[in-house]
Amino acid sequence: MLYNFMNDYNECAHERILEAIAQANRDQDDSYGLDRRCANARMLIQARLGAKSDVHFLVGGTQANLTIIAASIQPYQGVVCAECGHINVHETGAIEATGHKVLPLPTEHGKISAAQIAQYVAAHYADATAEHMVQPGMVYLSQPTEVGTVYKKCELEAISSVCKQYDMPLYIDGARLGNSFAAEGADVFLPELAQFASAFSIGGTKMGALFGEALVINDPAIKKDFRYHMKQRGGMLAKGRLLGIQFETLFKDGLYDEIGRHAVLQAQRIAAGVQAKGYALFVASPSNQVFPILPRGVLQTLAMGFGYAFWQTYDEQNDVVRFCTSWATPPQMVDALLQRIPNKI
Amino acid sequence: MLYNFMNDYNECAHERILEAIAQANRDQDDSYGLDRRCANARMLIQARLGAKSDVHFLVGGTQANLTIIAASIQPYQGVVCAECGHINVHETGAIEATGHKVLPLPTEHGKISAAQIAQYVAAHYADATAEHMVQPGMVYLSQPTEVGTVYKKCELEAISSVCKQYDMPLYIDGARLGNSFAAEGADVFLPELAQFASAFSIGGTKMGALFGEALVINDPAIKKDFRYHMKQRGGMLAKGRLLGIQFETLFKDGLYDEIGRHAVLQAQRIAAGVQAKGYALFVASPSNQVFPILPRGVLQTLAMGFGYAFWQTYDEQNDVVRFCTSWATPPQMVDALLQRIPNKI
Amino acid sequence: MLYNFMNDYNECAHERILEAIAQANRDQDDSYGLDRRCANARMLIQARLGAKSDVHFLVGGTQANLTIIAASIQPYQGVVCAECGHINVHETGAIEATGHKVLPLPTEHGKISAAQIAQYVAAHYADATAEHMVQPGMVYLSQPTEVGTVYKKCELEAISSVCKQYDMPLYIDGARLGNSFAAEGADVFLPELAQFASAFSIGGTKMGALFGEALVINDPAIKKDFRYHMKQRGGMLAKGRLLGIQFETLFKDGLYDEIGRHAVLQAQRIAAGVQAKGYALFVASPSNQVFPILPRGVLQTLAMGFGYAFWQTYDEQNDVVRFCTSWATPPQMVDALLQRIPNKI
Amino acid sequence: MLYNFMNDYNECAHERILEAIAQANRDQDDSYGLDRRCANARMLIQARLGAKSDVHFLVGGTQANLTIIAASIQPYQGVVCAECGHINVHETGAIEATGHKVLPLPTEHGKISAAQIAQYVAAHYADATAEHMVQPGMVYLSQPTEVGTVYKKCELEAISSVCKQYDMPLYIDGARLGNSFAAEGADVFLPELAQFASAFSIGGTKMGALFGEALVINDPAIKKDFRYHMKQRGGMLAKGRLLGIQFETLFKDGLYDEIGRHAVLQAQRIAAGVQAKGYALFVASPSNQVFPILPRGVLQTLAMGFGYAFWQTYDEQNDVVRFCTSWATPPQMVDALLQRIPNKI
Repeated sequence: MLYNFMNDYNECAHERILEAIAQANRDQDDSYGLDRRCANARMLIQARLGAKSDVHFLVGGTQANLTIIAASIQPYQGVVCAECGHINVHETGAIEATGHKVLPLPTEHGKISAAQIAQYVAAHYADATAEHMVQPGMVYLSQPTEVGTVYKKCELEAISSVCKQYDMPLYIDGARLGNSFAAEGADVFLPELAQFASAFSIGGTKMGALFGEALVINDPAIKKDFRYHMKQRGGMLAKGRLLGIQFETLFKDGLYDEIGRHAVLQAQRIAAGVQAKGYALFVASPSNQVFPILPRGVLQTLAMGFGYAFWQTYDEQNDVVRFCTSWATPPQMVDALLQRIPNKI
Repeated sequence: MLYNFMNDYNECAHERILEAIAQANRDQDDSYGLDRRCANARMLIQARLGAKSDVHFLVGGTQANLTIIAASIQPYQGVVCAECGHINVHETGAIEATGHKVLPLPTEHGKISAAQIAQYVAAHYADATAEHMVQPGMVYLSQPTEVGTVYKKCELEAISSVCKQYDMPLYIDGARLGNSFAAEGADVFLPELAQFASAFSIGGTKMGALFGEALVINDPAIKKDFRYHMKQRGGMLAKGRLLGIQFETLFKDGLYDEIGRHAVLQAQRIAAGVQAKGYALFVASPSNQVFPILPRGVLQTLAMGFGYAFWQTYDEQNDVVRFCTSWATPPQMVDALLQRIPNKI
Repeated sequence: MLYNFMNDYNECAHERILEAIAQANRDQDDSYGLDRRCANARMLIQARLGAKSDVHFLVGGTQANLTIIAASIQPYQGVVCAECGHINVHETGAIEATGHKVLPLPTEHGKISAAQIAQYVAAHYADATAEHMVQPGMVYLSQPTEVGTVYKKCELEAISSVCKQYDMPLYIDGARLGNSFAAEGADVFLPELAQFASAFSIGGTKMGALFGEALVINDPAIKKDFRYHMKQRGGMLAKGRLLGIQFETLFKDGLYDEIGRHAVLQAQRIAAGVQAKGYALFVASPSNQVFPILPRGVLQTLAMGFGYAFWQTYDEQNDVVRFCTSWATPPQMVDALLQRIPNKI
Repeated sequence: MLYNFMNDYNECAHERILEAIAQANRDQDDSYGLDRRCANARMLIQARLGAKSDVHFLVGGTQANLTIIAASIQPYQGVVCAECGHINVHETGAIEATGHKVLPLPTEHGKISAAQIAQYVAAHYADATAEHMVQPGMVYLSQPTEVGTVYKKCELEAISSVCKQYDMPLYIDGARLGNSFAAEGADVFLPELAQFASAFSIGGTKMGALFGEALVINDPAIKKDFRYHMKQRGGMLAKGRLLGIQFETLFKDGLYDEIGRHAVLQAQRIAAGVQAKGYALFVASPSNQVFPILPRGVLQTLAMGFGYAFWQTYDEQNDVVRFCTSWATPPQMVDALLQRIPNKI
């Protein structure tokens, strides 16, 4: 195979990250995230946020999600999210394993709206038997969403306002966050997230790190004793400095943004290329995922040279597939991919 | 108000049950379900089943459901049910609180089919990333369903067969079970349930008892140590004989069937009556719940004399409401109700 | 067997309770504890408390305990209790099943002291690695304790003060509460419990009811949405009025106190009797449990006429056993029991 | 500070591990542990085991412990361990958060014995009210233990035999496993663990890896669907190959054993050194932890140059402290440490 566009964690890490780890290798430091490197990474992120949010570093996304959600709501509360939300479909019931129901809302392009949430929550409280039902206690969004779409500032503001009205923390899963910053027309950056979200994650794994998610907590109520939650859920890395070093590197000289720009540029080249050849996109995604509708025959040929993810059957001749780019995607591989796709007949 | 048709637990208990409790009041007996009366009730039920199933007595339905489900599946497994299933919508996330996701399937008349289940489960195992998703580990049905419909023997047999194929226990929530026995055309009785279900409940609360559900376990794998599960979930009544005495009374002289016949007869009189007056039923339910579509004006007048449950908005003029009957419903109150409903204009 | 002193739930219920239920049998009323009888029972209890505490009615003790504890603490917090605490040893891990560790402290006579709790909690917070350990988040006491001893007002006051200092709710399990009121020298009654406890239960099951525990919540933080918790844990009885009627009866004309006085009087007659015959008590318990140290030969003879509970081996010749009395204990059976015990040689 | 002997994760990773990661950095590979490097590491470990055990790779110890325990036992079962067991005291209730009680047994030197376990379990089943108590469902040991002692083959064999008798899986936490192999007189190596344990972990974090624990499952009943468990608990690393590469490196050329030998040698040099100076050891530990009893004055002086962990107060003049060595401990720092400790007066 020439190149695998299956996902954005096919390679290990950006070389600057590996170098930083190697350089610090023999430094003795404190453990469990109480070290100097985590402290420094925390300050760099806070500077970008323009806020004194708490910043914790966890290894993976499922862990970050389950820990923050379990820390934020009461046993009888659930978390509202898009039907396709990662916590609803791809985490093997990790949220339910902490005792909480996921409350999915329908969505066409991966987003849910303030109006949808408001209607759902209002209906709950209007029901005379509300206490026989799971109380919506939190809202979960992904930025970008599972299909690469990106919330605008006005959308987030409206959702945040509904959340405040009903006293529901708003959590934003930013596993691919840097790619949303690089999306065309983006108007939600770290300061907006600090303003509108109760908590959010800054994904490292899919943004060039070996692993790691920074969990930013803005809401004082959720800040309390959060490290106990982390330890209990198995989310406290002994050599926590590894996370500190990586996020330091990502946020020191703009590497995080650089990685997002590269990934999105390559993805959008694919999007433009397949459209130029006459194919439609299943969903218009401005970030690092591309969902073209391609004939099965074309896909079979492609598969010999390139990896991609099957997304869903489109019709009798065509499938929707996903190409995913990252910090590591060589531009020439995008060229090669596009060359291999024939013009639509 | 003349009479409340809101639900089937508006009154306390059939007088024969109260008498039996009063009679045994000063008898000293063992506690926690290890008494003579539970033993006797167990034998009476086993005789009706024609099988040596384990029979446990619990106080309420939510408790019975959460205990048997948590006892039957692995942490990463969920329970498949109809969208409107009680465990999915009306138990405040009791199942999720034990760590398990509820996996709802769409339904129009309260039932799910063998084909639907088979397709859903097959799709799970066919997915290359199955282990990132909750594994369907059990199937939950209600008999009768939430909207009073009743599974036929051939339907249960087909579902049971899919369950066996995928090694999923089949649990049937019989909160109103006796009413399904009395439904016209019924062909599923206790022996069929012993044959097709891994476990099922025989509801007492909605069938004339003060409270109580008999949990029948047919599957040897679920039988093991079940009393530990009951105690852990708070489901072991200290004066367990109260449950024994009630189920003894229900199953000694055919009282359970008598109660079902009475309730269903009264419900079907309502159904026939409103249809004779020109109104349609939202769903054709042969058991003790009736769901007519009635004009809002009619409902307002009715509400002065009779209790009923709002079910859902039907259109601009009409709502779907529910009338529920029980062992306690006086036939003359059904007459009075029907008298108060005018013919459709 | 002449009479069983094994425990205080050998019989069903005080006759006045059965009568009240029978009388209300055909009254239609709301369900799930929203009925008139629960409202009335609530008011009667509040009047005795002299406080506007929330009062909920649950069926059993394990359920009451697990629901209030899970409602009061964070996932990473545990509940401090005496080693012999019911939640630590006799509820099959019901507390752990809600995700919380039980943190036992050693005790000789069933009680734990303010000093013990203060030292334990202070040690937690003083530890540099505290966040790697379960945070003590709540204190659980029983009144009377598992061995029938009774906390004095000054002891409760001191414990309550430590709890406030460390922001830990104080919960008192009153499964046999009425017996503590009747104990000689008692100075803790309902108003003191309303003052010192964040929440406490008023046991019905062991105090002459068919079943039922009233859960009194004084702390506003725990009051919020408590009915959701109850429903989720399976603790909301459909025909909730059954609980209302029972607690109404217990608290209307002093029946609850009368029952306590009777039980304690009979127990203390046993205690005095065995001591008069020359035997020692294992623990001096002023409530309705008596723990004499008796020779095995004597116990074998006794066992033919009377039930009692084996408590523990004392030495090569003697065992500690428990006699338990209740509302139903006939005084002449105490006479008969004492007659059967020979003087110590 | 000259050198920190506080613990065995003060530094990052053995250089050969960093090199291996850097070398593989741009290789595209499958994710979530389905890659070629994990497959290879698995084979290397199986070869050492001499058994076809399942081998999974997780990031951290708490996660490995909670995942395997939750996967192995029923909701009403608990896990028996030494009082000082890591799961009992230093994982913030991670086990309880999965619903299971930890059942601690007293221990003097970190070990529990087959006889102790047998007695505890037999007492459970002999109790007439066993079902009101948590059933002992699993046994957890650490090798080496929390205080560095090491189980002998005969001890493990006896424990394993009790476990089999009562159908309890035996799990051995090997966070520092390699150090037990290097202990003087060691007779338990990987084949013995494959033989006696139902599952065990091979710690990487404290043995020179950046992070990572290999979880070896011998018992077929626990093997089933284990990856679902891992994903649900947040224990499946996206770039799983990082774990594969590290364990490949550790097990390819004997590095794992080399690291253990180095750490144990340096620890035993400290142990011999302090004893030669006249001080006693609190516990005789043959692995990489040393627990001398030292005068407070000596410790104050030491603290200026060296890190160590306070363990416990010994008497009015002396404390027990812990020195921990690792792959990274420079022999000359052991020399320097010993020089700084004066002879006992």
